[in-house]
Amino acid sequence: MTLAKALGHFAATNPAEDPETRRFLGFSLFDWATVGLAGVDEPVAQAARAVALGSASPQGSASLFGGGQAAPAAAALANGATSHALDYDDTHFGYVGHPSVAVIPAALALAEARGASGATLIQALTVGLETACRVGAWLGRPHYEAGFHQTGTSGAFGATAAAGRVLGLDGEQMMQALSLVATRAAGLKSQFGTMGKPLNAGFAAEVGVTCALLAEAGATSTPEALEGPQSFGPTHGGSADSKALAGLGETWLFPNVSYKFHACCHGLHAMLEALRGVKAQGANASNTDTVEIRTHPRWLAVCNQPAPTTGLQAKFSYRLTAAMSLSGLDTAALAVYSEETCTRPDLVSLRDRVTVIADEAVPDTASKVAVKTPDGVLQSTHDVLADSDPEQIEARLKEKSSTLLGANASTGLWEDVSAIERQNGITALISRIAATPAPDRA
Amino acid sequence: MTLAKALGHFAATNPAEDPETRRFLGFSLFDWATVGLAGVDEPVAQAARAVALGSASPQGSASLFGGGQAAPAAAALANGATSHALDYDDTHFGYVGHPSVAVIPAALALAEARGASGATLIQALTVGLETACRVGAWLGRPHYEAGFHQTGTSGAFGATAAAGRVLGLDGEQMMQALSLVATRAAGLKSQFGTMGKPLNAGFAAEVGVTCALLAEAGATSTPEALEGPQSFGPTHGGSADSKALAGLGETWLFPNVSYKFHACCHGLHAMLEALRGVKAQGANASNTDTVEIRTHPRWLAVCNQPAPTTGLQAKFSYRLTAAMSLSGLDTAALAVYSEETCTRPDLVSLRDRVTVIADEAVPDTASKVAVKTPDGVLQSTHDVLADSDPEQIEARLKEKSSTLLGANASTGLWEDVSAIERQNGITALISRIAATPAPDRA
Repeated sequence: MTLAKALGHFAATNPAEDPETRRFLGFSLFDWATVGLAGVDEPVAQAARAVALGSASPQGSASLFGGGQAAPAAAALANGATSHALDYDDTHFGYVGHPSVAVIPAALALAEARGASGATLIQALTVGLETACRVGAWLGRPHYEAGFHQTGTSGAFGATAAAGRVLGLDGEQMMQALSLVATRAAGLKSQFGTMGKPLNAGFAAEVGVTCALLAEAGATSTPEALEGPQSFGPTHGGSADSKALAGLGETWLFPNVSYKFHACCHGLHAMLEALRGVKAQGANASNTDTVEIRTHPRWLAVCNQPAPTTGLQAKFSYRLTAAMSLSGLDTAALAVYSEETCTRPDLVSLRDRVTVIADEAVPDTASKVAVKTPDGVLQSTHDVLADSDPEQIEARLKEKSSTLLGANASTGLWEDVSAIERQNGITALISRIAATPAPDRA
Repeated sequence: MTLAKALGHFAATNPAEDPETRRFLGFSLFDWATVGLAGVDEPVAQAARAVALGSASPQGSASLFGGGQAAPAAAALANGATSHALDYDDTHFGYVGHPSVAVIPAALALAEARGASGATLIQALTVGLETACRVGAWLGRPHYEAGFHQTGTSGAFGATAAAGRVLGLDGEQMMQALSLVATRAAGLKSQFGTMGKPLNAGFAAEVGVTCALLAEAGATSTPEALEGPQSFGPTHGGSADSKALAGLGETWLFPNVSYKFHACCHGLHAMLEALRGVKAQGANASNTDTVEIRTHPRWLAVCNQPAPTTGLQAKFSYRLTAAMSLSGLDTAALAVYSEETCTRPDLVSLRDRVTVIADEAVPDTASKVAVKTPDGVLQSTHDVLADSDPEQIEARLKEKSSTLLGANASTGLWEDVSAIERQNGITALISRIAATPAPDRA
């Protein structure tokens, strides 16, 4: 059985209920809508939205973050790019990519356009997000290291599966859709640091919608489009890890998804979480003498700006974000990473008492912090891979959403995501997404 | 200067008049419209058209082969796939791809939607087709051999340049559009033999339109998107042949384009042309005793079906197509490749007197034929690379178009393409493309 056939059968079949997957899926849908709404004013979001508004569909249009409607493929592009604009969406380390920003916009655009139920949307996201993770794991790190942006490449397969599921494709059509997207799946890491990065997510969502629609209309392709000669895997540095498909439909990779709780470089997150630990022990800006941060050496070239002067630099600074956290600034907020923060005398003073130490013994997902206070040294260690308690994740996601959207919009969004399977559940969610950003945030 | 910058400047600048380029561009536009109209009933064309009809544009829609309108990007996809459906469109051996089926649909869709002039369309095609050829030459044969379908990959860059020119992008915006399409350009040879092959042309046209629109709306990317680390060339097996850009804007690769005059595998064309030579010397079905065909060995695995039984097999048979040609059948017609032709006793008898000989000394673009008649052996050699006389090409393209569309439609199409720069020139061409196929062909 070819990969496209196996994945096509999986994506077209009712998945067994998996409460853990279902819960994390709700988290991701909530977090995706949160960061999309928060990103709506970003330049890349505005450009993609302007292009989308140049399209419509006589067969049902789809809503855009920030308002307006477009043809489903164009809406998927705009909403994908918008939700990845802040780089604040979920991450799956198992496949080195951001699953939701490619998969959710594709499924949601077609669900709205076709009047699908919330239950169908959930099934589409279940199979789509898992397909993205499985293909990502099959391609593996060699694919990423060859220069490909898995959010765009694996994401396109996930988006196709999700879109196809909303359309009700059967196993054969789903196989064709996945085989067609194999000749479209794309995305380069050389685009990092430019609008091309968030656009890669949108492009994946767009081609997912188009390939699912083409398969629905009768288009066909080669079933060996992933693993055959001159097919996607061999031409894109894929590792062809056959274990990646084991247990498909029975076990789930998706719930290992990670969320960002700080609006800065991912390399700083473990430290910021460890600082929450020492703050819980009593550390704060006024009783901190010095701070020692231990981190994996690879991060020093990424996010160790010792004395940042701009908001962007601040997002890549162990020393300043440590000072911000100890001083009670909300590192989940966007506006806190500012020139003003960089120059505030009390923060600069504390920043200059932070020492960053490269330590090979610390995993690259972890950080150790030691804060010297008059009462002794307070220590804490955190590994972001350990963030798996659903209760804690739910609480943190709600905090983050409230910070970004304001308490009212955040609470309403959580309720609408939780009730997505009720009648008109999708309509309620769509009206949140299409809302203009609340002027009274937080 | 990066490649995207050089190509962007070229594509945004008025090219120097080049009469040869202009003439071949007219040939390609005429041939593209011919094979698109002839391909409109193919299953892939129907599927792509059905999807396109699910879109529209409040900012101006574009017409589809066979009628109906769609948003420009969707129209470009459908018209690209339709015009490549028969694999009967032009080829450029310098970059191993089909330039027109990716570039023309992108430019024409936006030209119609934006009400551009015929002169603008011609400028767009001039820079777009040349950009496709230049990027194709820069990627080179290693890219093709790595598994990539240059019609889709290089074609996407050409489509972007053409689309950007219709939109009037300046050099900076054009550079951004080309840099954005670098993270989208795709197309795999594993799709050959499936609908994925013609769709690759349509996908290239579609992403060209979208990336040009994104750049117009302010989207930006990395200017090193073609040649930088983890950019398109290095990740896609490109040869990075810097000579490929030499003389850009002064010399032109595009006029080396080749046209197909027979509705069968390209490997048979040199033989069919050589047979025209011996027929001109007096050979025909009734005076032919035996036929000897010499061809490059590589073709024997491609198109040497000794005794075909289906229309598709007939398109890959030296022996049968030789018999068809000597018997006066029009090998430019589609319907002539049929089960009936395969079993006609006189053709089978002549077919069985044809011998195919692999000859390393014959270039793979050439063929030598020797026909034994009662009056002696008639010989002729042909190399398809030698088909460069514009007068002959024009005459043959008109014959082909007349065979495929009927004399009236063909003559009208030629006149409308020739008059494209006059007022309403685009409108006249569009009305030809959107026409339903003439029931009274030939």
